[in-house]
Amino acid sequence: MLRYLTAGESHGQGLIGILDGFPAGVKILVEYINKNLVRRQVGYGRGSRMLIENDKAEILSGVRWGRSLGSPICLLIKNRDWHNWEKGLSALPEHEGSISSVTRPRPGHADLAGLIKYGHNDIRNILERASARETAIRVGIGAVCKLLLKEFNIEIISHVIEIGGVGINRMRLKLDEIHTKAEASVLRCVDKSIEKKMIKRIDSAKREGDSLGGVFEIIVTNPPIGLGSHTQWDRKINARLSNAIMSIQAIKGVEIGVGFEAARRFGSDVHDEIFYDKRDKRFYRKTNNSGGFEGGMTNGEDIIIRAAMKPIPTLMKPLNSVDAFTKKPFKASVERSDVCAVPAAGVVGEAVVAFEIANAMIEKFGGDSLSEMKRNYNGYMKYVRGI
Amino acid sequence: MLRYLTAGESHGQGLIGILDGFPAGVKILVEYINKNLVRRQVGYGRGSRMLIENDKAEILSGVRWGRSLGSPICLLIKNRDWHNWEKGLSALPEHEGSISSVTRPRPGHADLAGLIKYGHNDIRNILERASARETAIRVGIGAVCKLLLKEFNIEIISHVIEIGGVGINRMRLKLDEIHTKAEASVLRCVDKSIEKKMIKRIDSAKREGDSLGGVFEIIVTNPPIGLGSHTQWDRKINARLSNAIMSIQAIKGVEIGVGFEAARRFGSDVHDEIFYDKRDKRFYRKTNNSGGFEGGMTNGEDIIIRAAMKPIPTLMKPLNSVDAFTKKPFKASVERSDVCAVPAAGVVGEAVVAFEIANAMIEKFGGDSLSEMKRNYNGYMKYVRGI
Amino acid sequence: MLRYLTAGESHGQGLIGILDGFPAGVKILVEYINKNLVRRQVGYGRGSRMLIENDKAEILSGVRWGRSLGSPICLLIKNRDWHNWEKGLSALPEHEGSISSVTRPRPGHADLAGLIKYGHNDIRNILERASARETAIRVGIGAVCKLLLKEFNIEIISHVIEIGGVGINRMRLKLDEIHTKAEASVLRCVDKSIEKKMIKRIDSAKREGDSLGGVFEIIVTNPPIGLGSHTQWDRKINARLSNAIMSIQAIKGVEIGVGFEAARRFGSDVHDEIFYDKRDKRFYRKTNNSGGFEGGMTNGEDIIIRAAMKPIPTLMKPLNSVDAFTKKPFKASVERSDVCAVPAAGVVGEAVVAFEIANAMIEKFGGDSLSEMKRNYNGYMKYVRGI
Amino acid sequence: MLRYLTAGESHGQGLIGILDGFPAGVKILVEYINKNLVRRQVGYGRGSRMLIENDKAEILSGVRWGRSLGSPICLLIKNRDWHNWEKGLSALPEHEGSISSVTRPRPGHADLAGLIKYGHNDIRNILERASARETAIRVGIGAVCKLLLKEFNIEIISHVIEIGGVGINRMRLKLDEIHTKAEASVLRCVDKSIEKKMIKRIDSAKREGDSLGGVFEIIVTNPPIGLGSHTQWDRKINARLSNAIMSIQAIKGVEIGVGFEAARRFGSDVHDEIFYDKRDKRFYRKTNNSGGFEGGMTNGEDIIIRAAMKPIPTLMKPLNSVDAFTKKPFKASVERSDVCAVPAAGVVGEAVVAFEIANAMIEKFGGDSLSEMKRNYNGYMKYVRGI
Repeated sequence: MLRYLTAGESHGQGLIGILDGFPAGVKILVEYINKNLVRRQVGYGRGSRMLIENDKAEILSGVRWGRSLGSPICLLIKNRDWHNWEKGLSALPEHEGSISSVTRPRPGHADLAGLIKYGHNDIRNILERASARETAIRVGIGAVCKLLLKEFNIEIISHVIEIGGVGINRMRLKLDEIHTKAEASVLRCVDKSIEKKMIKRIDSAKREGDSLGGVFEIIVTNPPIGLGSHTQWDRKINARLSNAIMSIQAIKGVEIGVGFEAARRFGSDVHDEIFYDKRDKRFYRKTNNSGGFEGGMTNGEDIIIRAAMKPIPTLMKPLNSVDAFTKKPFKASVERSDVCAVPAAGVVGEAVVAFEIANAMIEKFGGDSLSEMKRNYNGYMKYVRGI
Repeated sequence: MLRYLTAGESHGQGLIGILDGFPAGVKILVEYINKNLVRRQVGYGRGSRMLIENDKAEILSGVRWGRSLGSPICLLIKNRDWHNWEKGLSALPEHEGSISSVTRPRPGHADLAGLIKYGHNDIRNILERASARETAIRVGIGAVCKLLLKEFNIEIISHVIEIGGVGINRMRLKLDEIHTKAEASVLRCVDKSIEKKMIKRIDSAKREGDSLGGVFEIIVTNPPIGLGSHTQWDRKINARLSNAIMSIQAIKGVEIGVGFEAARRFGSDVHDEIFYDKRDKRFYRKTNNSGGFEGGMTNGEDIIIRAAMKPIPTLMKPLNSVDAFTKKPFKASVERSDVCAVPAAGVVGEAVVAFEIANAMIEKFGGDSLSEMKRNYNGYMKYVRGI
Repeated sequence: MLRYLTAGESHGQGLIGILDGFPAGVKILVEYINKNLVRRQVGYGRGSRMLIENDKAEILSGVRWGRSLGSPICLLIKNRDWHNWEKGLSALPEHEGSISSVTRPRPGHADLAGLIKYGHNDIRNILERASARETAIRVGIGAVCKLLLKEFNIEIISHVIEIGGVGINRMRLKLDEIHTKAEASVLRCVDKSIEKKMIKRIDSAKREGDSLGGVFEIIVTNPPIGLGSHTQWDRKINARLSNAIMSIQAIKGVEIGVGFEAARRFGSDVHDEIFYDKRDKRFYRKTNNSGGFEGGMTNGEDIIIRAAMKPIPTLMKPLNSVDAFTKKPFKASVERSDVCAVPAAGVVGEAVVAFEIANAMIEKFGGDSLSEMKRNYNGYMKYVRGI
Repeated sequence: MLRYLTAGESHGQGLIGILDGFPAGVKILVEYINKNLVRRQVGYGRGSRMLIENDKAEILSGVRWGRSLGSPICLLIKNRDWHNWEKGLSALPEHEGSISSVTRPRPGHADLAGLIKYGHNDIRNILERASARETAIRVGIGAVCKLLLKEFNIEIISHVIEIGGVGINRMRLKLDEIHTKAEASVLRCVDKSIEKKMIKRIDSAKREGDSLGGVFEIIVTNPPIGLGSHTQWDRKINARLSNAIMSIQAIKGVEIGVGFEAARRFGSDVHDEIFYDKRDKRFYRKTNNSGGFEGGMTNGEDIIIRAAMKPIPTLMKPLNSVDAFTKKPFKASVERSDVCAVPAAGVVGEAVVAFEIANAMIEKFGGDSLSEMKRNYNGYMKYVRGI
């Protein structure tokens, strides 16, 4: 069993993650982790804090001389502007009151529910942890998981397919094309002409002081058949992935394969017929409407998941709210902020999906060392081809 | 912590569920459980097995004299046609071979992935457990959870909003209207004229030997503010609910609040402004685009979740497939089957949501006895009103 | 991950267990399960209820034609005297009051703490579930796990080494000798002359209306090196085993290897020196003071665990107590009861240890099917010998 | 649910712990945490590394201005001699080979089992994580938990009752006396004359190049009645505590209440009779043989747990072993090391017990904020007194 916990406030000392149960012997390069952190930070429509941050991870444990040890891997991403917050977010009682408290909850944020639930009198005690800044460390953890998956030739790709209602047509692109084009685009969009329209839409939202959401897609290539299980409600890997995706800040919808479209078609137009390739000795499909899952298990086809992200709730355009204590109405607004963060959310999506797939791989193949996993994996693949 | 496991094969002796961690002192009537089982079985478009089944639950443990004991609650739903399968699904080795094995996997089912994963040579060993028949016991477990929630005036409603592309317009109905109309409809659809169109669509699919999916909506009324948490990725209750919904057989998409629509609107048109009602001493919203969640927590508004169900994969119309062992192509088809089971899936959706909300209530308010939960709940509600 | 839940009251309809995550393809014979149930029931010093019970398990799911399916295995042990309790423990409200309530808590039982915790007004609502009768279903679950372990030549043995202060001298017996002698003894004691003294002690306790506890030992033969892990506090398998043993009713102490004796010796007399057998290509020890664990992992030597059971708390000899509601003092006593149940507890110990070891095996070697587990296990053993 | 993970190697950058699910509003002072860290480091018989370390915790998250936030609390204890190991334990591949590998496994350590399990070729990759140094961060985590418990007047005390066979007589000391005397003793022993004998024994072991273990006792004062549960095997809090204690490096036995002695006495001499104190409106016992548990629940009496620690396995006196790869025999020994660490282990015991009790408190009373917990706790205590 692989598991992780994260800790850290948005403007605190840093973000920390512990990944426990990771097999020994996997090549772990901090450069690769950092590359992923950067991928989360870029994207047209981001505000200026992204530039300040320029995240770098430190590996505090679990890796030695470039290889995982089997012991818990701890990552730390220091916050670069901690010096500005040292008193305001200090753990020490002597700094109490060094910055003013926040009592005005913003619509669309954890502010009000969190304040009440945890019995605080300062919304800062909620917003610092609820912030999507936390996803940086999840991207770090996910990068480590990706390095494991790469050993099994499993890649995880994300691209943006819709922003503010502007969407791409489904093109038949090969996976590495999708990856290359997404990486080259400021919006992680594979269609240059659509990207332009998206940019326009973002610019116009920005002028209005408004924000936009969108839809991203995650593709997992080359999963083995039989991850997850049909046998118990909480062993279904499509459900676990849905949980992972929905745990990302601002996600309001998840689709697998054709998703909601499946509700509109006939059965004969949804279920993927089964064929057998004698040369490669494998079952395959000509369509992939299922998005890679049947019965809560991977069926050997690529995994396809889409997620809808709501617009960023911090707007320049004011929204009505009331002070949590005085109950006086006020207009919630900010000076400047991100307008759109869908490309970043896609990168976070890759990370949380990587974790779940890595966990399922470890569950199926045992996870003490990479060489053991590979031995077990190869034995299984040989069996699969021999059926 | 509330948890449950289910067991049982589709044509085995029966379905069994154990619900562990349920508080003591809650009124549990088997009639209420059975009423829910019936609700899962009806619906226009179901095949004839539903009539055979007519499920009844037995409470094997955890309830005495109509009240929960605090000990694990075990439900058993016997399969009425077990006598036809006594040898075919017998646990005893002497019955080996009493029915022929299944080697031809059906597209859209767990058949092929399960066969390979578990190393079987008979697909029956998979399909018996993967069948949506298993959801009957989940409805039973969910009914028990609903009885707890009713004590806190929390109701869970489902209705069908789309079948095979025919959808209702969002009407502004009150919740009890939705409930009453849905209960009165053969498709759990609140709009009579749309229901007619849906029925036509089902009839036409039936004539074609095809099947249909659709979309159902779950509404949870009156949740307290502050269930779930923003503090850790796996504590977010919207994500847990997404996991629960996606664990239902044939679900391919989940939306919360406006869902995918959120990806198309401006932020100013998505985030629910905050108001305060001085008389009732509560914060409230005039819109509920968030579907009742902010920051992974309930925000006190009704919970709104939608799910897309794919068409039933067992079709009279043949689909291409290959034998798992000979690899010979064949046409997968059945003589008759359900054409559409979306209303039933909605009832299952109620059940799995009831479990998650009950679990979150127990987590927040402690769960040893109903009187303790109520004392803690009332203390919290008083505090909330006093903020 | 293997897991199980049990349900059922002592005089209810029966005891139910669901074992989830068990691999497919393992031979499961109900006779073997029943043989283990009987082993739990016999033993000198037991009362007469044991004879009434004569437990038999029914396999309700997860096994077909003598082989596990990979789906959840549900066992049911019906209570033979349910007809006497049908109203007294009925789930239906109409039977309320059909037997009188219990308000007088017995020392040494869950009675008082449970009554208060769960807010009951009838101790029967606690004692029915807290009873050691529940261990019958755990023995059933454990028997299934043993069948998996046997496939890897792992056997689990228990014997009684002390009763009421009468203990055996540590003899150097071979494992199958211990097993054979224990099975042949009414007290599961390998030393005939000590057995006699134990019987005398039990007889004398019986005459006094008193009860006795004792110490049993569990031995697990042939575990592979490397189950469990040193990497995180809750992955240590010695700790998990301690949890399992201590979860058995009436257990007050657990020892591993030399146990408390380790606290009295010099280090040089405790740590097991390491040798290598070139012919068998394996590391081995000449002593086994560690009881088979180093660093929270199995080290390849036999696992040795001992547990101390307190005397049965239901005595003919009266103990002082007070009525939970009137607070009036009374003398707690019974007409007749078990005097000593240590041999039975040893059999329960085998079961809970079997579960933990099976779980650890599945974790290390993957658990979808027996053939997959064996392939992975054999690959590992080959690697171990090749180091 | 409260949970924690730790990370970090013995000579790595530091030790990290994340405590997740801790309620908001609890006073957290780093000084208190550090005081506990120091308590783990002192004790007669420790080697010189203890002096080098002088551990200090940094609170990286979850606490602001001296109060917990409800978000994950992350502690970091930096290793003071990291500069000596920066290359040897570096995460970077370029430092590979900068110190020589260890291939000679020490008896009594995780060395051999870990090396094989994780497929390493350098034992350092195991011993760095398996080291009892990891317990420092657990003491930090436990200190935070203690601060929560103090709010409910629950204190956790440890003292050493036996070292190398020299044990104290059970004296009837009051709890604060035990605490005061233990804190004042270099061996955490409440009996000055016995302490002298223990010191002699340690000195003599040291001269022999040998090591010693012992027995410590943990006392938890003032737990409410009804923590844990009898209803399911893994909800029993005595079992969870046993798991926690056994997860401490070098522990080989756990006892609750009279423990193994219970196996030697008559039932009438073990079970604690029940009385009622009308003035204080509480049930009480005159004896506490049960150690505070009946039926897997706290019964309101003090919790008493004892643990046996084996002697430290790193000896100056050589032990036989073989090289893991060449298989050549060698004599395992060190130049100097701790001779005895039982007092430290007791402090670790306090920490892991504090975590489990805090977890059980949160489970029973809800855990979002201290004020909510107190409100629920007070409501329960009032109910208990009113029975």
